[in-house]
Amino acid sequence: MKQLSTKITDTFWNNYRRLVKDQLIPYQWAVINDEINVTIQQENANTLNASEKSHAIQNLKIAAGLKKGKFYGFWFQDSDVYKWLEATAYALRYAPDKELQNKADGLINLIANAQEADGYLDTYFQLESPDRKFKHVSMSHELYCMGHYIEAGVAYYQTTHNQQALDIAIKMANCIDHNFGPETNKLHGYPGHPELELALAKLAEVTADSRYTDLAAYMIDQRGTEPNFFAQQALERETAHISELFNNMDPDPRSKYFQNQKPVRKMDTADGHAVRMAYLLTGMAHVARQNHDQTLIKSCQRLWQNITNKQMYITGGIGSTVAGEAFTFDYDLPNDTMYCETCASCAMTFFAKQMQELEPNSEFTDIIERELFNGTISGMSLDGKHFFYVNPLEVNPEASAKDPTKSHVKVQRADWFGCACCPPNLARLVASVDQYLYTTTNNTIFCDQFISNTTSFDNGIKIEQTSQYPWSGKINFTITATQGNNPDIAIRIPGWSIDDYQIKVNQQLITPTLKNGYWYLTDLPNGTTNVVLTLNMSVRQTQANPLVTADVGKVAIERGPLVYCLEEADNGPHLAQFSVTNQPNFVTELDDTDLPIKFIKITTHGQKINNTITDLYSAVQKLATPDQTLTFIPYFAWANRTPGEMQVWINRA
Amino acid sequence: MKQLSTKITDTFWNNYRRLVKDQLIPYQWAVINDEINVTIQQENANTLNASEKSHAIQNLKIAAGLKKGKFYGFWFQDSDVYKWLEATAYALRYAPDKELQNKADGLINLIANAQEADGYLDTYFQLESPDRKFKHVSMSHELYCMGHYIEAGVAYYQTTHNQQALDIAIKMANCIDHNFGPETNKLHGYPGHPELELALAKLAEVTADSRYTDLAAYMIDQRGTEPNFFAQQALERETAHISELFNNMDPDPRSKYFQNQKPVRKMDTADGHAVRMAYLLTGMAHVARQNHDQTLIKSCQRLWQNITNKQMYITGGIGSTVAGEAFTFDYDLPNDTMYCETCASCAMTFFAKQMQELEPNSEFTDIIERELFNGTISGMSLDGKHFFYVNPLEVNPEASAKDPTKSHVKVQRADWFGCACCPPNLARLVASVDQYLYTTTNNTIFCDQFISNTTSFDNGIKIEQTSQYPWSGKINFTITATQGNNPDIAIRIPGWSIDDYQIKVNQQLITPTLKNGYWYLTDLPNGTTNVVLTLNMSVRQTQANPLVTADVGKVAIERGPLVYCLEEADNGPHLAQFSVTNQPNFVTELDDTDLPIKFIKITTHGQKINNTITDLYSAVQKLATPDQTLTFIPYFAWANRTPGEMQVWINRA
Repeated sequence: MKQLSTKITDTFWNNYRRLVKDQLIPYQWAVINDEINVTIQQENANTLNASEKSHAIQNLKIAAGLKKGKFYGFWFQDSDVYKWLEATAYALRYAPDKELQNKADGLINLIANAQEADGYLDTYFQLESPDRKFKHVSMSHELYCMGHYIEAGVAYYQTTHNQQALDIAIKMANCIDHNFGPETNKLHGYPGHPELELALAKLAEVTADSRYTDLAAYMIDQRGTEPNFFAQQALERETAHISELFNNMDPDPRSKYFQNQKPVRKMDTADGHAVRMAYLLTGMAHVARQNHDQTLIKSCQRLWQNITNKQMYITGGIGSTVAGEAFTFDYDLPNDTMYCETCASCAMTFFAKQMQELEPNSEFTDIIERELFNGTISGMSLDGKHFFYVNPLEVNPEASAKDPTKSHVKVQRADWFGCACCPPNLARLVASVDQYLYTTTNNTIFCDQFISNTTSFDNGIKIEQTSQYPWSGKINFTITATQGNNPDIAIRIPGWSIDDYQIKVNQQLITPTLKNGYWYLTDLPNGTTNVVLTLNMSVRQTQANPLVTADVGKVAIERGPLVYCLEEADNGPHLAQFSVTNQPNFVTELDDTDLPIKFIKITTHGQKINNTITDLYSAVQKLATPDQTLTFIPYFAWANRTPGEMQVWINRA
Repeated sequence: MKQLSTKITDTFWNNYRRLVKDQLIPYQWAVINDEINVTIQQENANTLNASEKSHAIQNLKIAAGLKKGKFYGFWFQDSDVYKWLEATAYALRYAPDKELQNKADGLINLIANAQEADGYLDTYFQLESPDRKFKHVSMSHELYCMGHYIEAGVAYYQTTHNQQALDIAIKMANCIDHNFGPETNKLHGYPGHPELELALAKLAEVTADSRYTDLAAYMIDQRGTEPNFFAQQALERETAHISELFNNMDPDPRSKYFQNQKPVRKMDTADGHAVRMAYLLTGMAHVARQNHDQTLIKSCQRLWQNITNKQMYITGGIGSTVAGEAFTFDYDLPNDTMYCETCASCAMTFFAKQMQELEPNSEFTDIIERELFNGTISGMSLDGKHFFYVNPLEVNPEASAKDPTKSHVKVQRADWFGCACCPPNLARLVASVDQYLYTTTNNTIFCDQFISNTTSFDNGIKIEQTSQYPWSGKINFTITATQGNNPDIAIRIPGWSIDDYQIKVNQQLITPTLKNGYWYLTDLPNGTTNVVLTLNMSVRQTQANPLVTADVGKVAIERGPLVYCLEEADNGPHLAQFSVTNQPNFVTELDDTDLPIKFIKITTHGQKINNTITDLYSAVQKLATPDQTLTFIPYFAWANRTPGEMQVWINRA
């Protein structure tokens, strides 16, 4: 069974999708073409100020022989162009635009011209270091960049049937296949930054050519074997670094940073760079499905459990430390020093979707919901023009300004980044959110997300879903069947509402039983069936496992799929002095500020310390904690007003 | 009035002084002479592994023309030798040792031979870069190293009357005076790392030559003026760095790091590198006293207030961030990422002593006590053989191992350091602790610290102080006067006991009144007067100002001058799950483990969360918190057993 076409009719998501199409895609096009001056934010106090301009299209033009000049920018700058192309491919599906499509067609032609005869394409090495291709694979990002093109080429081909887009991808994959593999005359390597694996799995599907799956599977299992490929390359290299930019970054070739400290099948914990790990897992799960590889599936499940049960923030963020943008260890989730890169939340969404495709279970689609409504979209301002790389759970502007170890924690979203991975990553996710609504198996349609849409399937089933989600928990499904022998319709019951929800089928309340977190509508008759799911939208107080040192004695406020936070703009400063009472009376109301998105805010009577102390240290005394109205706003909406403190985890009285 | 001689008879401090004399001084002598192999601990994940050996004496020998070879080690390696010499000078006062004195005399001869004809001495520049002397003063440490020699030379001269030791110092100071000053042909500069200022003030006293005070005063006021001296030198330099070691460290020449972002008289907050700031303040207070400079005194007072009321840890530690080993901002006192360098606590002790000399007040001597009994001696293991650079208030060994941003927070003390500033700094403080017991003015002897001793003064007064401090709060003073016209004896009443203490004079309870935190015994008759001070040694629960985000809802346990902590060795893991009840019943008893120092431990019935939760996030539920015995040990004694968690600030139930 296949999902044929989806039209999203959702107020909340169509706003984001409009922003991506109308703001982000044109803005990034101008950036990669150096048509606008961008103020580049320094990532943190330890990093160099990165590129002042993108030069990414220019690099391709030089490689294509259309311009003279030198390479400029990060050595992985090509990927910016490809992620723009991929986002555009998805956006054109919901917002056809001939002019934009012409631009993209022209870009593909340029890329074809920049690609070498053997399929190789990486403008940094073509222009700067042609003799060092594939010689520093740990840090070169050649396979990463080509992986991103392959994803983009596949997506663009699927949208527009532009054969050239797909041909470039195939030629590229063939080039990699020619250079990497088990044969003695090939490199026994794998990407330094995983990405290619998941791209090859996609290419295998669109081309129905299992060679690409085989190549991805080879790379996945080659990772972590001895002799260590990156260490071997380091020994063989004459000079240490591929780029000046790179002077101070050359991690141990056998390290958690690269996820090659051991074979992936032997990994019990997610380690190292969080985005790399989640991309790798996405590819692993996809390849495991294509190859029916049960032990690889087990590895994915084990690492999924480790991340989601021990290393994930309540916002869906991953990466507990800025050092290496990495996982640290189980239950280490500091709120004010973490990384939680927007890209990492996007990557977790990709991984979760692949896990769902392996065997549908709400544990996966609950996480997709957590990511979609929290840790991913928090990466973009409500006007679609500013972006976060790092998504903190607690911010003190003075700390960000005055403690260099917190300098990566920004108080305001930036116009753009020197290393501009996050905005286009978020763009391609938002533009393709229709791909996360349903999962189909032979005999079941799984309704995974509550985003209003009309979708038709290849067996004549049509599902119309309408709601005011995430603000209202009442979701209407109008299901039309015509062909008989109809599939089951499985509707996700979110974990947060599992103890209190209601399902009506054609106005009749039913007593549901669940399987793997889904309620199954079986024996679907032809004609129209109406299902109304009502979820419990009460405000929830959530606690973290007490092994999370940072959250002991604290509570997070959630409602529906949304994590909420306190912001100084509503509550004044010194948020650490606020507490939620034991029996809070939460009031929900529509926010009346003039922000671009109307959202429901939550207020309650809490307490705030009346700080009458002037000494730094004094004998313990009970400080008065007079009532204080606490105003919570959705986490995704923070930092859209006057910069100030923000806090997700609040003290309990 | 002058303190003539002091014999310390204190069990607690004589143990430390014996360790310094018998362990630390011989050990460091072997280190600087490269007689033993030392395992050097990497300071943190961002630093290079520093020198593998010291080579410091060898550098001097090469500079003296006695050996051939090249400079090796940090470019400020000379200072290690000088701090050894200074500690030795003090140790010889309480533990005369002809062999050690011969070594020191020989060393002074070597130093004299290494010194150039004009008085200059810095082996790095003499051997590696003679044409660049005083050309990169911001980072060169030439003035810092010479400052340390001047301190050492003065101390050694005072102990042994070795004239050569003083002559080297005078020649050195004259060289600096010849090169720096307001005259147009001189450099209008000041030390990149303050230290020289306080050394010059000491030299001015021993030589009774105010030129050295004038030079220090010039440097103090030149700091922060325009044109900025370091920026000017940066412009004039042809190459950027003085040393390869130095490649990645070259802070903005006009910056808080150097405390030259503005003139010191305009500073309202302590900023930048904490040790530098506290050394600078020590010099400022000393010079202000010598010059009766009232506005400079005001600046010292303002910055004293800022540090002690807003930027100091309860242990006396300063430096809230590892980045630049620096102050951050008011009330920013994170417990697990801070720096709190042992040297910084030593430096605060020096600063406090100079403030006390300006105008005696227990606010200064209370801080000296806090430093002496907590943040300084925590830098050394109880066997005197291992050392901390960083003194954390909360440690999780897994975080230190797995989060590079906490890699500077060590779980065990190291054998030695590549940059070995801390152990000899602590050594010279411990060896000179007799200098912190009393402060004298024209007509008053201030008894500042409760460390058993017998001290005679130049007006015939003798004070014998006996106690079991810090374990007991009963302190006996036997005061003998012979000459008439006797001074007042002022005894500090510690801030922590100010509401509950007792004074008996010749067995008679008196009703004391205090002035600036001191009780004054006036009209002292000739003969012997007995004073017994009894302090309140009840266990105290201390809270931080609620503006300290890290400590909201937490409590620290103190008794007498000591801060206590929980350690995993006594309490098991997961210290964040422990809490102190509201009405704890503290029991004090002598520790029965076989540690080298017997101390009083504190136990109480607290609570620990019974963690029945397996999910990472779940609906708030009240978790059982069964009774749990909490065992606290003195902070200085932590990390002398099996490595594990440690916590000073504990949750309140």
